[in-house]
Amino acid sequence: MGDNLLIVHGGGPTAVINASLYGVMREALKHPELSHIYGARNGTGGLLKEDFIELKDVPEEKLELLLQTPGSAIGTSRDALEQEEYDRMTEILEKHQIRYVLLNGGNGTMDTCGKLSKACQAKGLDVCVMGIPKTMDNDLAITDHSPGFGSAARFIAQSVKEVCVDVKGLPIHVVVVEASGRNAGWITAASALAADEDGIGPDLIYLPERPFDEDKFIEDVKKLLKKKSGIVVVASEGLTDKDGKPIVKPIFKTERATYFGDVSSHLANLVVDRLGYKARGEKPGLIGRASISLQSSVDREEAVLAGETACKAVLAGETGKMVGFKRESTDPYRIIPILIDIDEVMMYEKTMPDEYINEEGNGVTESFKEWCRPLIGGGLPKMISLND
Amino acid sequence: MGDNLLIVHGGGPTAVINASLYGVMREALKHPELSHIYGARNGTGGLLKEDFIELKDVPEEKLELLLQTPGSAIGTSRDALEQEEYDRMTEILEKHQIRYVLLNGGNGTMDTCGKLSKACQAKGLDVCVMGIPKTMDNDLAITDHSPGFGSAARFIAQSVKEVCVDVKGLPIHVVVVEASGRNAGWITAASALAADEDGIGPDLIYLPERPFDEDKFIEDVKKLLKKKSGIVVVASEGLTDKDGKPIVKPIFKTERATYFGDVSSHLANLVVDRLGYKARGEKPGLIGRASISLQSSVDREEAVLAGETACKAVLAGETGKMVGFKRESTDPYRIIPILIDIDEVMMYEKTMPDEYINEEGNGVTESFKEWCRPLIGGGLPKMISLND
Repeated sequence: MGDNLLIVHGGGPTAVINASLYGVMREALKHPELSHIYGARNGTGGLLKEDFIELKDVPEEKLELLLQTPGSAIGTSRDALEQEEYDRMTEILEKHQIRYVLLNGGNGTMDTCGKLSKACQAKGLDVCVMGIPKTMDNDLAITDHSPGFGSAARFIAQSVKEVCVDVKGLPIHVVVVEASGRNAGWITAASALAADEDGIGPDLIYLPERPFDEDKFIEDVKKLLKKKSGIVVVASEGLTDKDGKPIVKPIFKTERATYFGDVSSHLANLVVDRLGYKARGEKPGLIGRASISLQSSVDREEAVLAGETACKAVLAGETGKMVGFKRESTDPYRIIPILIDIDEVMMYEKTMPDEYINEEGNGVTESFKEWCRPLIGGGLPKMISLND
Repeated sequence: MGDNLLIVHGGGPTAVINASLYGVMREALKHPELSHIYGARNGTGGLLKEDFIELKDVPEEKLELLLQTPGSAIGTSRDALEQEEYDRMTEILEKHQIRYVLLNGGNGTMDTCGKLSKACQAKGLDVCVMGIPKTMDNDLAITDHSPGFGSAARFIAQSVKEVCVDVKGLPIHVVVVEASGRNAGWITAASALAADEDGIGPDLIYLPERPFDEDKFIEDVKKLLKKKSGIVVVASEGLTDKDGKPIVKPIFKTERATYFGDVSSHLANLVVDRLGYKARGEKPGLIGRASISLQSSVDREEAVLAGETACKAVLAGETGKMVGFKRESTDPYRIIPILIDIDEVMMYEKTMPDEYINEEGNGVTESFKEWCRPLIGGGLPKMISLND
């Protein structure tokens, strides 16, 4: 077999998935033995169609732009694959003399990574397959955290801070901001860092790790309205009730997922209906994973590192693993890249542990904030109130 | 009467309302004859309660933070005032020896400005009252544009660009981003600047100046889906049908306003229902007027200028006017501050003229983009696709 490398993106993009691609390229370009550096166009679908983008000839100044480009610069997909498709992939890899495969994605993609590496082994192919972690939701197992999360965390922390400052000067007003992360509350929780500089942060935080009780929510808001006029609530898009049912109705279903109504609107309307106060819901949605102005510098650098590490690892003969981060110290913040057996990661969703959630289930703990703080890449801008 | 100055904020804040306050302070502090520089706490309500914040003693380094603080640092309100309240205000101004009043706000506030200046004249009070323009929606008359708009325009242009780049690499996907501006489409229209650098911008733009036809919308989307997989639609929060009725149901009403459901969710659901494609709605809402990372530098500087100009004007004896901008040139961009008779401004909402809207009613014209471009404070970051 020859020496070609293929990179495949899977699942929803983040603000730094292309930074990992940049890291892969930076390392790969040091190896003239790689005849081709391919990107699969639009994810595994592109691999199955043998639709490859030659990345080796992309000029340096264009590659640099990957660091400030959201989305997936080579496209992505979210396909559930059958065993025969894995078999087909091995044939394609052999045909195109692809010896190194890097799969950049979240839980679904790591499942693909494990299955593809096993399919190659079963066929006796000398192909190294490696996962690059990527998830704004931060729900990949074992690794301290995943690229994509730090930027999503910075976005929600700063945006919620700005909303808090905005409503602080308004007449009574309840604002519910909806945060991404259907099953894992990491992003929602990161909004707590809004208060770091000057104490101005969200009043209530509801995570999908705790059953949501609408009566308790209304009580929480009522209690706060006795003390202040502008209340900011951050709620996960995936809140469920005590029976595990989403608090909003499903709107439509596809093979892989069900789509629900907006939690933010639902909770805002609840406040209006039950308390008679002005309330509005905000849902930044995709903007929260695509914002370049609020990209975390730490996240970007770590994404590059993850890509580089994965590339080095396959070239050194490693396979069936995912790059992860081990935190060596929080203050000063220091991580090292590690390789994690893909079986330990595959299809396991990491949610927030109990010690990161407050007792009332409407906020986070100091230990969560300590853990999360270094990931957002520096403090948020200082703001001022003359109205205290 | 003594020589005190009062500044009052009205209506919803913008990303630069505090920059105008900074401009007022910078000028006012040059005048030792001003014994007090007051801020009315929480708008006209604070004035009526004689609840004043002394701004003269705020240290310089704190004042600087006003330039990067969204919301209203002295609070704001949105009260409909009666004639007896204007009479009461004149008494309070007299009692506190306030000779200069600056009202920073939008249409409602300019109405207050006019009425207060007339009430002072009727009483023979030597009080100068001046309006400082402030509206993210850009719907104040006569002035070329208003502080607050440029930053809202930059936010929507860059955020929509990021969403476009994000969905470009995804399987078929329709995203509807909801933009602020219930009756005036200026912000919605500004999303067109997303495409400036590299042609990646929104596919369809629906403004409140045109009746919205759901069948036509579905046809527009269907036509585009034949050519590309990721469609981004920007829709005003205030879209109405051919009979002038909002396309979404009202959720609740207050004395001054009616609150409607989310246009973005409504249109996304329409795509799912009628076309069977994946679609999602995004509503950045307040984030769009509070974002400091996407504040326009031009907007910030002009907001400072508007505050300074208003302060100079009242000190020179001008009254019953609003500061505005006259555009002297678009390329190179150059404006000068002017004073506009408040009667010309009061309660008149400026919407988009026909020449800024395309014939089909689903986009904007080049002349709009030319007009808008200098206001967002420089080009958006370059991004790259390797997937064309």
